Amino acid sequence: MNDSASGQPAVTAAILVIGDEILSGRTKDKNIGYIAEYLTAIGIDLKEVRVVPDEEDEIVAAVNALRHRYTYLFTTGGIGPTHDDITADSIAKAFGVPIDYDPRALAIMRERFSEADLNEARKRMARIPDGADLVLNKVSKAPGFWLGNVIVMAGVPAIMQAMLDDVAPKLKTGAKMLSVSVRADAREGDIGSELAAVAKAHPGTTIGSYPFFDDARGPNTNIVVRARDPASLAAAKVAVEEMLVRVKANL
Amino acid sequence: MNDSASGQPAVTAAILVIGDEILSGRTKDKNIGYIAEYLTAIGIDLKEVRVVPDEEDEIVAAVNALRHRYTYLFTTGGIGPTHDDITADSIAKAFGVPIDYDPRALAIMRERFSEADLNEARKRMARIPDGADLVLNKVSKAPGFWLGNVIVMAGVPAIMQAMLDDVAPKLKTGAKMLSVSVRADAREGDIGSELAAVAKAHPGTTIGSYPFFDDARGPNTNIVVRARDPASLAAAKVAVEEMLVRVKANL
Repeated sequence: MNDSASGQPAVTAAILVIGDEILSGRTKDKNIGYIAEYLTAIGIDLKEVRVVPDEEDEIVAAVNALRHRYTYLFTTGGIGPTHDDITADSIAKAFGVPIDYDPRALAIMRERFSEADLNEARKRMARIPDGADLVLNKVSKAPGFWLGNVIVMAGVPAIMQAMLDDVAPKLKTGAKMLSVSVRADAREGDIGSELAAVAKAHPGTTIGSYPFFDDARGPNTNIVVRARDPASLAAAKVAVEEMLVRVKANL
Repeated sequence: MNDSASGQPAVTAAILVIGDEILSGRTKDKNIGYIAEYLTAIGIDLKEVRVVPDEEDEIVAAVNALRHRYTYLFTTGGIGPTHDDITADSIAKAFGVPIDYDPRALAIMRERFSEADLNEARKRMARIPDGADLVLNKVSKAPGFWLGNVIVMAGVPAIMQAMLDDVAPKLKTGAKMLSVSVRADAREGDIGSELAAVAKAHPGTTIGSYPFFDDARGPNTNIVVRARDPASLAAAKVAVEEMLVRVKANL
């Protein structure tokens, strides 16, 4: 996919959240929204998210479906020290590569843990698939990894965020998707047809309409215009604003 | 899938979140966690979640992948009055059925809106695929729908929640997944190997380990045991507690 205005190819991504606790509702995911906003800000288009349980077959199938389709796949969860943490082994299986204790990862773990504390459970966190680079984090030390186009991160938000900061400077990025929000001060249903006409007249942009409840005036709407090209963005914004003046004069 | 203890077949579900605004990070999803907890409470196992953009091909592919695999598919988002709301048409396409203005839906809309206010944009919300039942909501009136095993709901949390309340009494449910949480008062890495042994000895249960930071004692762990059979749950809980006493005595 190319952006016609900039000529830069779009860089795309998917997120795979791994964890029974998200699917049971016990833990409320905080990573999807964070990563989504982060990637948008650096010029990577998040195109799909999946959440799957801690089951090897499910993880392998999702990893292989997503890594072939997008520039990057970010995973969260399942890289801790307990038996239900099976992400590293599942990624190795998805790529068909061996997995074993990684000397670089063990060295990092030894900076934090004494030999007595570096038990079998903690050593599990140093199991890294063959050919992967480590992803560092300053919070808990235990590394994630980067294999092919798959970036494997922790599920704990503070650790995941540190890992994302570690990999971000190394990611390819495209032209940033720019956006501007226009507060309609009108109900979504009152402007729908006219907004559709504006969207049709501005094919280089994406125009979204998001209703919200405004304590002062009740049902209200935010219109969000998105484009990679600043001139297209500005033109569509003006067209939205003019449409709003016109429609509201007739209500 | 059968639960060996109860003999009741498991009832499964997936969620499909439809919306560019979730993928851009502009809107943080609040529906996945809510639906996950709700389904768990009524005895339906959420097995997968996907988030896709407002693009017909993506919605159709995800709907068809998920509806054939699980007992139910719940979708959120994309059923409002604006041009970017394409869920109803996409569902009709996924099922290969026609879609048109539905007299029942129009009647509901007329209860809320005068003829002057029921413009083309609002009428879009009465487009319902052939053969679907309506899903009512008391908040905004505009209905969702239920076609085959797919339940199509709004993205606005308050409206989605009202729709879920409308459909819940009509859903098949299985034996409830019971769960109990044991606070370890130990670091996850200190108990990992022993917890794995407990999990292996209790195959009728699922045991998850969730690290958290405790202001009083620092790194701590919640161990969550899940099972459909109360006796299996109780036995595994006792085994976890005994293991914790034993391991902590040796730390």
